[in-house]
Amino acid sequence: MDYADTGKGVCIPGFKAWGVREGKTGVALIVSDVLCESAGVFTQNSVKAAPVILTRDRIKNGLNAVVINSGNANACVKGGLEDAEKMCETTARILGIEEKHVSVSSTGIIGVRLKLGEIQELVKKTSEKLVCSNEGGLEAAKAIMTTDTRPKMFSVEYDGIEVGGIAKGAGMIAPNMATMLCFITTNAKLGGGDLQSALGDSVDKSFNMLVVDGDTSTNDTVLLLSNGGRECDVKVFRALLDCVTETLAKKLALDAEGASKYLEVSVVNAEDDESARKAVKAVLSSPLVKTALYGQNPNWGRILCKLGSVVYVDFTKTSILFSDGKIEAYAIQNGRAGDRGKVAEILKSEKIIIKVDLKSGGASARGFGCDLSPEYVKINAEYN
Amino acid sequence: MDYADTGKGVCIPGFKAWGVREGKTGVALIVSDVLCESAGVFTQNSVKAAPVILTRDRIKNGLNAVVINSGNANACVKGGLEDAEKMCETTARILGIEEKHVSVSSTGIIGVRLKLGEIQELVKKTSEKLVCSNEGGLEAAKAIMTTDTRPKMFSVEYDGIEVGGIAKGAGMIAPNMATMLCFITTNAKLGGGDLQSALGDSVDKSFNMLVVDGDTSTNDTVLLLSNGGRECDVKVFRALLDCVTETLAKKLALDAEGASKYLEVSVVNAEDDESARKAVKAVLSSPLVKTALYGQNPNWGRILCKLGSVVYVDFTKTSILFSDGKIEAYAIQNGRAGDRGKVAEILKSEKIIIKVDLKSGGASARGFGCDLSPEYVKINAEYN
Repeated sequence: MDYADTGKGVCIPGFKAWGVREGKTGVALIVSDVLCESAGVFTQNSVKAAPVILTRDRIKNGLNAVVINSGNANACVKGGLEDAEKMCETTARILGIEEKHVSVSSTGIIGVRLKLGEIQELVKKTSEKLVCSNEGGLEAAKAIMTTDTRPKMFSVEYDGIEVGGIAKGAGMIAPNMATMLCFITTNAKLGGGDLQSALGDSVDKSFNMLVVDGDTSTNDTVLLLSNGGRECDVKVFRALLDCVTETLAKKLALDAEGASKYLEVSVVNAEDDESARKAVKAVLSSPLVKTALYGQNPNWGRILCKLGSVVYVDFTKTSILFSDGKIEAYAIQNGRAGDRGKVAEILKSEKIIIKVDLKSGGASARGFGCDLSPEYVKINAEYN
Repeated sequence: MDYADTGKGVCIPGFKAWGVREGKTGVALIVSDVLCESAGVFTQNSVKAAPVILTRDRIKNGLNAVVINSGNANACVKGGLEDAEKMCETTARILGIEEKHVSVSSTGIIGVRLKLGEIQELVKKTSEKLVCSNEGGLEAAKAIMTTDTRPKMFSVEYDGIEVGGIAKGAGMIAPNMATMLCFITTNAKLGGGDLQSALGDSVDKSFNMLVVDGDTSTNDTVLLLSNGGRECDVKVFRALLDCVTETLAKKLALDAEGASKYLEVSVVNAEDDESARKAVKAVLSSPLVKTALYGQNPNWGRILCKLGSVVYVDFTKTSILFSDGKIEAYAIQNGRAGDRGKVAEILKSEKIIIKVDLKSGGASARGFGCDLSPEYVKINAEYN
């Protein structure tokens, strides 16, 4: 289901937020009026940044506030854990809450110690402006940006239940300025287990199906805070949450570094769920598919070839449909070449939707990504 | 062990070869004076081109001749198998040998039916010039090129045992002009089982550790033909074969499309063999590592991060050593930052050797690859 954006970001009733940036360093705070049930999904990378280690541990206490800095990932440095703890300490002291209810996230350069004093100063400045308003949500979204060109926020409301979020980055799209971060707030009252499983499932369908360059950062974090303000059916909550995570994932794909095209790939009639997901991610990750899209080149051979390298493909049954959201055309249909000219026409669009029908089972999956441009190479080669 | 190149390519005594190219179509023949024990390693892609299906089946008969065309992969087209059979038929008829002893390989565009008449004509022309000489090896190596900028051949001799090969492409580096092909000849007398297992192990250490863009073509083929001219210890043969496959794999990496740097990655002291291989391939495949190398950017965080996403990494124990073959410097040593300036200096070289010490076990692996340049994107975007 589609819901309209309420424009609040994380600033749904009961949550204040703000953000401040000075030079390369940004700080955002998200603060709840009451202690929140909390859930989190974290990077699968075996190298975990200090804030990830700390926050993963604190979720079980419930959270009252989230402090985030951009500019430094606080990863792969000695003393990182102490710095992360001090960020929480400072935040707790200033807000007058218990430190064990404060989580921390960081994004930015790896392997360099963060400037704690500077961040503590910004925490103070940010705390003085905390507000429950659309502007608060926007300023928080802006402060956590690194190489993002636009702040990302989205929030929905249905029958008094509100879910809102802000996000930055996309995988390791901007690797020194690493990390995908997302913070979501809600007033839905659910058990802690329901909250965690809803978040896990939702992330699996959204951020975990988002491919920019296939690299996984040390800091990836999605946090969900519920102040329990309103009784809620778990199905309703899941629909709202899925809408927020999917929309934010798409916004990340749309803002992917150096990308000229947004890409959506569906695989239908795959053998099983895992095959479907694997197939989608393989196509989204293939440099050859991504360069072909950048070049507006209707090269379905690359897609078929990539699919065949990760799942069973019977070429004679396979169909690949291209669409720009308005017109559509088969590149191949049941193994026979389709309308190459019309596919080439569709590829001029900035939004490309590819639907692959494998006709080998009943499972399907969908994912989000972008093309691969010379600009991407330049940005990531030159960044220092 | 290192052996000098004898310059013969596949034209070791007992084997004739030649190649002819007209426009985008090339044809090469490799012909043995006697029936050869044969072994092969083929693409793992579930979408297999017609010549792969045919050749995989014919190896058990032993091979007398190999026919290869470039310009068209004969993949994903109806009638492909008949066309592949007709190429073998024509070759057998012209050479006066049995069709079941002829194999076929193709490389080039996918999804377009090949021009059989044109190829049959070139088979005839090629057969008239067959010769056992260095020139024969070179002309065959040239005829199988697609977007390769240089022919690749290498051959060695030790104690009367000769092993020689030609190769083209690099994975799906040139995707429309797909495929990595390699043909190896020897006079070593070994059982068919020994031949196949030696080839499988050798390919695992060489071509299977070669990453250009991580895509697997529908046509990848490595063939080994032995005329059994000389009794041979299997260990000696394996050493010679490994030298040929490794050298050819390196030549493919050096000629990778749009690449400005050759890259060699070793991982030592990994938990087990699979972890070591996985770690090497992950680093070689990472767009972020590859763009950093292109940009001569001493960004060890990207390497560490990529490693951590596929194997267990204890950052505090890990060392990453950079070398250009002459000077070397640690980017990190036991988790502590090394000499960034010296690493930056090394990155100016066209040859970069990265050695990662995980200190988590006793296994090691090595692989070959290249950087990722804007040129790669352009070539693969614009190819039609």
